[in-house]
Amino acid sequence: MKKILVLTSLLSTFAFAQIQKVEPMFWWKGMKNPELQILVYGKNISDYTIELSDEIKIKDIQKTENPNYAFVTINTNDVKKSSFKINLKKKNKNKIVDSYSYELKDRQPNSSNRNSFTSKDIVYLIMPDRFANGDESNDSKKELTDKANRQIPDSRHGGDLRGIINNIDYIQNLGATSVWLTPVNEDNEKQHSYHGYAQTDLYKIDGRYGTNEDYRELSRELNKRGMHLIQDYVTNHWGISHWMIQDLPTQDWINQFPDGEKGFKRSNYRTTSQFDRNAADIDKKIALNGWFDSSMPDLNQANPLVLNYLTQNAIWWIEYAELGGMRVDTYPYNNKEGMAKWVKAITDEYPKFNVVGEAWMHSPAHVSYWQKDSKIAEIENYNSNLPSVMDFSLFSEMPKAFVEEESWDKGMIKLYNSFTNDFLYPNVNNMFVFLENHDTERWNEIFKSNPSYYKLGLTLISTVRGIPQVYYGSEIGMRGDKNNGGDAEIRKDFPGGWKSDQQNAFTNEGRTAEQKMYHDFTAKVFNWRKNKEVIHSGKTKHYMPEKNVYVYFRYNENESVMVILNANEEKQTFKLDRFAESLQGINTGKEIISDKVLPINSKGEISIDGKSTMIIELSK
Amino acid sequence: MKKILVLTSLLSTFAFAQIQKVEPMFWWKGMKNPELQILVYGKNISDYTIELSDEIKIKDIQKTENPNYAFVTINTNDVKKSSFKINLKKKNKNKIVDSYSYELKDRQPNSSNRNSFTSKDIVYLIMPDRFANGDESNDSKKELTDKANRQIPDSRHGGDLRGIINNIDYIQNLGATSVWLTPVNEDNEKQHSYHGYAQTDLYKIDGRYGTNEDYRELSRELNKRGMHLIQDYVTNHWGISHWMIQDLPTQDWINQFPDGEKGFKRSNYRTTSQFDRNAADIDKKIALNGWFDSSMPDLNQANPLVLNYLTQNAIWWIEYAELGGMRVDTYPYNNKEGMAKWVKAITDEYPKFNVVGEAWMHSPAHVSYWQKDSKIAEIENYNSNLPSVMDFSLFSEMPKAFVEEESWDKGMIKLYNSFTNDFLYPNVNNMFVFLENHDTERWNEIFKSNPSYYKLGLTLISTVRGIPQVYYGSEIGMRGDKNNGGDAEIRKDFPGGWKSDQQNAFTNEGRTAEQKMYHDFTAKVFNWRKNKEVIHSGKTKHYMPEKNVYVYFRYNENESVMVILNANEEKQTFKLDRFAESLQGINTGKEIISDKVLPINSKGEISIDGKSTMIIELSK
Repeated sequence: MKKILVLTSLLSTFAFAQIQKVEPMFWWKGMKNPELQILVYGKNISDYTIELSDEIKIKDIQKTENPNYAFVTINTNDVKKSSFKINLKKKNKNKIVDSYSYELKDRQPNSSNRNSFTSKDIVYLIMPDRFANGDESNDSKKELTDKANRQIPDSRHGGDLRGIINNIDYIQNLGATSVWLTPVNEDNEKQHSYHGYAQTDLYKIDGRYGTNEDYRELSRELNKRGMHLIQDYVTNHWGISHWMIQDLPTQDWINQFPDGEKGFKRSNYRTTSQFDRNAADIDKKIALNGWFDSSMPDLNQANPLVLNYLTQNAIWWIEYAELGGMRVDTYPYNNKEGMAKWVKAITDEYPKFNVVGEAWMHSPAHVSYWQKDSKIAEIENYNSNLPSVMDFSLFSEMPKAFVEEESWDKGMIKLYNSFTNDFLYPNVNNMFVFLENHDTERWNEIFKSNPSYYKLGLTLISTVRGIPQVYYGSEIGMRGDKNNGGDAEIRKDFPGGWKSDQQNAFTNEGRTAEQKMYHDFTAKVFNWRKNKEVIHSGKTKHYMPEKNVYVYFRYNENESVMVILNANEEKQTFKLDRFAESLQGINTGKEIISDKVLPINSKGEISIDGKSTMIIELSK
Repeated sequence: MKKILVLTSLLSTFAFAQIQKVEPMFWWKGMKNPELQILVYGKNISDYTIELSDEIKIKDIQKTENPNYAFVTINTNDVKKSSFKINLKKKNKNKIVDSYSYELKDRQPNSSNRNSFTSKDIVYLIMPDRFANGDESNDSKKELTDKANRQIPDSRHGGDLRGIINNIDYIQNLGATSVWLTPVNEDNEKQHSYHGYAQTDLYKIDGRYGTNEDYRELSRELNKRGMHLIQDYVTNHWGISHWMIQDLPTQDWINQFPDGEKGFKRSNYRTTSQFDRNAADIDKKIALNGWFDSSMPDLNQANPLVLNYLTQNAIWWIEYAELGGMRVDTYPYNNKEGMAKWVKAITDEYPKFNVVGEAWMHSPAHVSYWQKDSKIAEIENYNSNLPSVMDFSLFSEMPKAFVEEESWDKGMIKLYNSFTNDFLYPNVNNMFVFLENHDTERWNEIFKSNPSYYKLGLTLISTVRGIPQVYYGSEIGMRGDKNNGGDAEIRKDFPGGWKSDQQNAFTNEGRTAEQKMYHDFTAKVFNWRKNKEVIHSGKTKHYMPEKNVYVYFRYNENESVMVILNANEEKQTFKLDRFAESLQGINTGKEIISDKVLPINSKGEISIDGKSTMIIELSK
């Protein structure tokens, strides 16, 4: 890391100490946790005396091996006014050489008790650079190196927060109720920065997306509609150009490998070592401390200063931007004890706040490990505190299930088998269910624009337990082949997001017939799901697939819904007597896609077209 | 079941009541559980008064809807002599019309504290009909319908207990230390009875295998050598010709389906319903209560009389035949609460006794569910009490691991991934590890007699945690294609087991060069393993496979063994520095297959031939 340490460009122009950065820049009164650790940064700042105005006590001041940092801890309850001064003095002198006015704002009413996404919601995932360009003036920024060029797949394309704000109605009308954006903090990497996962400033929205205020505006606009903004939070790594990486507070702020160039060693990505009793220390170390990429130094969440920085930053964004949830990137790559504290700090502050972690593992037992109160993690005396996980196990089974010839373990039985594992999860309702995301092949690419498969998949994720998550563009049948074209293929611009676009799929008139078909199916199912408590929180009863038809019921005391998925090319007709225990007292059903009312009872039968689905609201 | 009830042939010849059967036929003094429930069977026996001699109190007498049964419970501590009489009298009369002299034998010294198989052992699985014919006089029996004919694959072939007794030296010299026989109780089904899983008398060895005394002799001969006899116990079903099935004590003695012919409905075999919270009742019922086959009525272990019958029968065999373990067939098909009691009764009586259940499931979480004190079963408030399970998950990964091209999730990483799940199991040392059994394709068939794969597989199961289990004939390279020829293909006669055999693979001289190669490799590894505490109970440390070479160490405070498996066709040479944490202070190693001594230290390197293995005892 020597080379990195030399690059202290931020400081080089200052001959004397001066407060160059204070983070968090401000805070709030009346937080449950009154303690606040303020990072004060400036050339040789540790040689100076730091004092606070109004006789406010410094509870602790922590200095590090790098003289440019001081971490000042206060009890915010000690602050009686709405601001105070952080004063810098030369040692044993009385003259204040620099000063920072630190504000403690009032919280929004009911902030602590804010709502968050739940299984009532449907989450719409957006890559902001690729969705809609609402402000062409910010497409490129002088101070940010990676410039807009839509002709280059991996360059910035100009999508921004204004573009999303402009299209909230579109998202709402589709029936989605929460929006997860891939990271929008500043990512000033030289190139390939559009994905945002190599952040360079954790307190600032990337100028090419807009401002912190724009971000809050988006959130408020969503909140007005009862929708939630979900922040994509990256605890595992920062961009190598982050100012603190360029001037490390401590060498162990990040995980470094002495034998790697600039401390870099690539992770082996084998995060099973998090619970593998047989794992070699070296493999585990490389898995967790190795870097996700050479441009992404791996943060050391075992360092309390790092952890506290990440915790306060997350809480700052929740409070500032009035967030309705977080999604945490590469969850199992982090120090897991640190992360358990991080999530706990957030959910202690906001008890209803939901946080979903990307624990990309295929075995249900392994996915379960990462969910709060998992009995499987308890085996290893671990509790992640993480409320929500993603059902990567179901994700990986789905595409196979819909195409395979039926056999003992192939075809629709894969779905059935997947849900037999529900008992392993502490909270099945708090899991993302999804066909795709920004890192995976697009569903419609796998199935070569055959809408039947989209309908099968979408029906499934919209009606099983959990929180459906869709990826922008799927609802109009977007494709793109990651395996051949790389990530940019699955992150194409949404048609209509740019003024120059020939076509505007945001509007009904603008959509092609094919797009309309995808869109309208999605909107129909999603809008139906919105108020269906029986889907949000009902129980599930599923039946062993027969002839590759999978039938399940969602039910509670008041309602019951029957879902049929037919993976055969041919129409299937079958008797309903098998389902008698779920059809007691039932006489009719309303199929919600076709709006047809059908006679449904345990003595009758039913027909379903080939490669299609039925969602039937049952009644007496 | 009406048709079955009519077939009361056993009774039809008797005009008046008479004790026709008493089970258990005798019992022992001084069992921990002094209670004994004696089944007394005879025409209309419930119309009679049953009394015991010597003023022994009947604690309870239970009659059923079938007047031919009485279940008489006594406290054996009340019996002062070594036998007593069970007397039958007409009601309100004094004359004894029939009497049975019931013996309470003395137990063998230390019987309760008997040893059982552990991870110190290697288990050799035999199908007795197919191993060796030591007594030609019992090949067919007048009273047993299925006659010997070696020309017919599914007929009886004549193998017997004497054949096994004659070849104990062979088994011992191979290095196996326990023998698991597929069931040897009477199976008097009309045809296809050789597998023994449709038992017709639970207290009697099938006459074609020998006598109860022969069975005990085999066990005693094994015990003399410190070896164990493991009984294959079938709690789930009996043969349809079993006398009690022909005259059911109660209609719910077995699980019957009114809509099925003679109560039969085939199981759907989806035993995940045992823990699936979403399972439909009907599917679960068919899975557990459905019959394994039309000739195998499904026992109802939820009926206390059935459960007690099975419990006492198991204990009877342990005590009588001085058994060293049990293997339980089709474990998850049983009533799981009943089975938890069954195992507990056995292990309460014999605390060191080991019982392994066949829970044929592929997910480690599901396999774990069935092992005693599983935290996964605890989620559902279940504890099976079953000490040992079979690692069917590893079993299904192994053959793929050795042939696949290496990728993120293919090739040797499959083995690594398998062992990352060890934390899910309450006791990894008490699991069978195996390449094959009497129900699976033979390993050497899968690999078309390529000995390299045998050596890879055998090295693995002989050096990882758990109890290696081999299947008779594998050690001489036997093949047979189940997929084409059916079960008989994987259950061929062991060459040399019959006098008329051209070849005798039981002897060194009799083995072909190819058989010798398989045999000698097996014997070398097994005999080495025998006294290696570090393999029996040491810890494991494994390293992420690189270039499709898998390396792991078994270690304890005193010893350390390095195992290398190279799945490549080509020789591999690699540095040892990666393994530094396992090579501290190590300077040399003795490879136990080649007997070569090698320099081994973390600064050196090592070479391994293509498709081969090394087992290296490390020293300073």
